[in-house]
Amino acid sequence: MSWKLNCHADLMEQAMTRKILAMGAAPGLISLAGGMPAPESFPVAQIKEAAGKVLTDTPAAALQYGVSDGYMPLREWVSQDLEKRGVHYAPDQILITNGSQQAISLAAWVFLEDGAKLAVETPTYLAAISTFRPTGCDFVDMPCDCDGPIPEELYKVADARFAYVIPNFQNPAGLLISAKRRRAIAEAASELGLPIFEDNPYGDLYYDNEPPAPLAAVDPENTIYGGSFSKVLSPGMRVGYVACPKPVYKYFLNLKSAIDVHTNMLNQMIVHEVVKDGFLDNHLESVRSRYKVHRDAMAQALTKYMPKEAAWQTPSGGMFFWVTFPEGTDCTSLLDEAVKRGVAYVPGEAFYAIDPPTNSLRLSFVTVSVEQIDAGVKMLAELLS
Amino acid sequence: MSWKLNCHADLMEQAMTRKILAMGAAPGLISLAGGMPAPESFPVAQIKEAAGKVLTDTPAAALQYGVSDGYMPLREWVSQDLEKRGVHYAPDQILITNGSQQAISLAAWVFLEDGAKLAVETPTYLAAISTFRPTGCDFVDMPCDCDGPIPEELYKVADARFAYVIPNFQNPAGLLISAKRRRAIAEAASELGLPIFEDNPYGDLYYDNEPPAPLAAVDPENTIYGGSFSKVLSPGMRVGYVACPKPVYKYFLNLKSAIDVHTNMLNQMIVHEVVKDGFLDNHLESVRSRYKVHRDAMAQALTKYMPKEAAWQTPSGGMFFWVTFPEGTDCTSLLDEAVKRGVAYVPGEAFYAIDPPTNSLRLSFVTVSVEQIDAGVKMLAELLS
Repeated sequence: MSWKLNCHADLMEQAMTRKILAMGAAPGLISLAGGMPAPESFPVAQIKEAAGKVLTDTPAAALQYGVSDGYMPLREWVSQDLEKRGVHYAPDQILITNGSQQAISLAAWVFLEDGAKLAVETPTYLAAISTFRPTGCDFVDMPCDCDGPIPEELYKVADARFAYVIPNFQNPAGLLISAKRRRAIAEAASELGLPIFEDNPYGDLYYDNEPPAPLAAVDPENTIYGGSFSKVLSPGMRVGYVACPKPVYKYFLNLKSAIDVHTNMLNQMIVHEVVKDGFLDNHLESVRSRYKVHRDAMAQALTKYMPKEAAWQTPSGGMFFWVTFPEGTDCTSLLDEAVKRGVAYVPGEAFYAIDPPTNSLRLSFVTVSVEQIDAGVKMLAELLS
Repeated sequence: MSWKLNCHADLMEQAMTRKILAMGAAPGLISLAGGMPAPESFPVAQIKEAAGKVLTDTPAAALQYGVSDGYMPLREWVSQDLEKRGVHYAPDQILITNGSQQAISLAAWVFLEDGAKLAVETPTYLAAISTFRPTGCDFVDMPCDCDGPIPEELYKVADARFAYVIPNFQNPAGLLISAKRRRAIAEAASELGLPIFEDNPYGDLYYDNEPPAPLAAVDPENTIYGGSFSKVLSPGMRVGYVACPKPVYKYFLNLKSAIDVHTNMLNQMIVHEVVKDGFLDNHLESVRSRYKVHRDAMAQALTKYMPKEAAWQTPSGGMFFWVTFPEGTDCTSLLDEAVKRGVAYVPGEAFYAIDPPTNSLRLSFVTVSVEQIDAGVKMLAELLS
């Protein structure tokens, strides 16, 4: 038999996500590689109660086919939640997706194709790269400084189909774009006719100050906004959303409808039941308190153990430290030895769409204990010294 | 701002699925349009019990990120279930998807692209057409007779990337391919190097005799097989699967991983908990008994009311009657008047990828009551007489 595949089939990769998940499972290994929330943060009792309620009160709705846009009460809740953040999208501009990863992949197929340009931060989220790449698009780097993409230089990527930006505690670099810079980026992009895809899975995980309003607050008509319940409730339920300007909403909706009909109803209804009366307010306080301790522990361990050539900034939110070593350090090939010694990380290389340097790595601090953070960073520092 | 879209974005359509779902909601309307299982057939008590058990015993696994392939015990169950049908795929060849619709869309992106040929039955499943079309593929009709695709003529479509076939109670035409023909199709396709995508959402919904073994039983190495829990448990949970030959499995897996990481864990574990001890055996007996009554009622109503020019075959399973009228009848434009009178159907046109005729329509008998079937068919017959 012969399998003639799409010409980009070999670009279909699993990023490192899968390898990371497999690593997390090796017994004894301290995995600083994972991007997984701490299971202790899952509100199990509330989800269980909600599941019981939904399956008692409205079983037919929870188990039957639903509309492709998603469960309307959840879309209304998302619209109101965004409103509180200064972002205006009506419920009929909200599409519920299988986690925000699917929001990214819908954007990939609606906008991209062979040779289309896509502007990305450098480094950027590895699984977004995996989603964009099989479209055959050309990645172009947005000129960035330590406050994110540089507005005055966006004209250099103005011919991109859109710019993919993670303004809050960027994965992997941990960067938070300032309020002033956000406005300047959004305004420059609008003037240039460069649409923005704003990916915001981490915005609620702040440990110092609440982040400024999203880019989408400035010009929602030029911004597609992706959000998720993965980091604040449960990633395994795969409930996220995308908010779109009306002219492009229908393409997202039509594609979603064609590819998997709709996001599973049961979990949409459970999520709505859990969040509808303000549960997240207190819950997020407790998640933030938990993660802040871990963030501080990792900052302390890095300071204590890392050679002075290593550089990092303590992130004010999110899940990751991004550590850079002198040029010539090959964090990619060191991974195997690190795993042998009992600690895992994600090589920085995985976060570059083009010309990846190898002298950086990403460390997650949320799934592991404070003791493991100390032990893991120590092992890593010894290896890299 | 400017939205420069993928050149095929206008081919992203919702088929009629969404219009159908909306129709189902209009009060008073007898919808024979829906492709939805009867909600009375959902095993609510079992699903509720399973949800409670999963969230009590293994909450962290149900709510955390999982592997992209899917929940291993469910993949093992699927592999064993297929084995009982004479089909051999190991668990590591099974990928859990968001309903079998996503299995179809993975095949679309792994195999198809601009100008690639895709062989389909005529008519064929409307939502598969919606999924295939935005790839820019060229649809080619497989020569068919009343027993399905004609093996001796498959050479005419041998340059297609694959052939999409629904051997059991085909949607929309209700056709069941015979055992002898199945073997001949599978053998001819293997010889020609024409891979088959066998879509089997309806195989368990038989009302007369159990269908013959799937095409995949003959040559699993040349067949990709899509299955679903939508029609036998619950469509709203969006749990289906695809079984692949090893050389193509990794592409399906990598793409799945990139587009939405994995199918939601909670529902995968609930489905497994419900089915693992043989629940489906008795449950399916009761679903079949229920639907058989409806099938018989629709056969009777059609015989009683339809003009003698109308033609149909009573399907021996599945969910649909396919009714054809004399050439010149325009079932598409009659739909609005039918809805005004209080009955809905799906115009046959929606099921043709190319050159759609308009003189047929699809009627579903599973969601509506026996009384509604009689009243709906009567109204429809009056309109079409």
